[in-house]
Amino acid sequence: MSHVSIIGTGNMGQAIAGVAGKGGHTVQLLGQSDSATAVTGDIVVLAVPFPAVSAVIAERGDTLAGKIVVDITNPLNFETFDSLTVSADSSATAEIAEALPASRVLKAFNTTFAATLAAGSVGSLPTTVLIAGDDADAKSTLAGVITSGGLNAIDAGPLKRARELEGLGFLQITLAASEKIAWTGGFGVAA
Amino acid sequence: MSHVSIIGTGNMGQAIAGVAGKGGHTVQLLGQSDSATAVTGDIVVLAVPFPAVSAVIAERGDTLAGKIVVDITNPLNFETFDSLTVSADSSATAEIAEALPASRVLKAFNTTFAATLAAGSVGSLPTTVLIAGDDADAKSTLAGVITSGGLNAIDAGPLKRARELEGLGFLQITLAASEKIAWTGGFGVAA
Repeated sequence: MSHVSIIGTGNMGQAIAGVAGKGGHTVQLLGQSDSATAVTGDIVVLAVPFPAVSAVIAERGDTLAGKIVVDITNPLNFETFDSLTVSADSSATAEIAEALPASRVLKAFNTTFAATLAAGSVGSLPTTVLIAGDDADAKSTLAGVITSGGLNAIDAGPLKRARELEGLGFLQITLAASEKIAWTGGFGVAA
Repeated sequence: MSHVSIIGTGNMGQAIAGVAGKGGHTVQLLGQSDSATAVTGDIVVLAVPFPAVSAVIAERGDTLAGKIVVDITNPLNFETFDSLTVSADSSATAEIAEALPASRVLKAFNTTFAATLAAGSVGSLPTTVLIAGDDADAKSTLAGVITSGGLNAIDAGPLKRARELEGLGFLQITLAASEKIAWTGGFGVAA
């Protein structure tokens, strides 16, 4: 049983809250008006757009020490939809991990659209959440929350693999934005 | 009706030959002992490992002018399985396109394992081939071969997107090599 704090009340924050709740975990959902409320979860999901992450870290970073921090961002250039805003040999997650050296930072949920988290399926495949990070125990704890909520979880490797997960998330968003796939579809994983 | 030359007789070359044949297209399959045989296809698939591509280009590059050339490679460091061998802001396809300025170079087939090309499905989803390139007509021609062979095809964007396709192929190979998924599975696309 985990206690999950989710910072951000958009589609993704709500969908992740739904998964955790379905799994019997307690959820603290924090919006912009909750800046005075302390984060209480042992798992903290940063469910805000990448440009907003630095403000969250500036405000709450010290209180995230020791916690599992989950980065779900896709750091797209939303003006061009043609590149990421992090350098090609890095990732949003690597930048966040550098800013939160005392936290156990993971990448997850950036390759699953909110609708597929809620539905539990991507087309005819069960929804699979890919997790990257350097802390095996943290990945295992997060995978437990995900699978208890009815989804699949795969350990996709070290934190370095966040770069490929962000490439995948970027590609998936461009396909949906150009109507090649639906926002209810995307990449499913056949094990 | 296209005429497809496939250079390379490994699993992928054979699987792509099967797709083209199923679609009613004629196929020329060229192995290492066929170096004296001229390439006759209007579509030429480079179905060799990335380190072998430069030798093919040195040998046959001049004869590929004007043709649609399809790069299917995943330029992994196969010693570490932890990185690609092309620079982070480039791609194997970009390097091949630079070496073949008179050809119409596309990326395709690098995100589908041979088994899913042959089976026509990734788990319960139909197999989808993602195509990237800057020549819309060339992409459309290749997509026609793929769909006539019973698979789905999606235009994934400009040649620049080959970088994300190679990241996806890299990720998929690492998942299979670490037995998180099977070589008969992988990423399916739900439209």
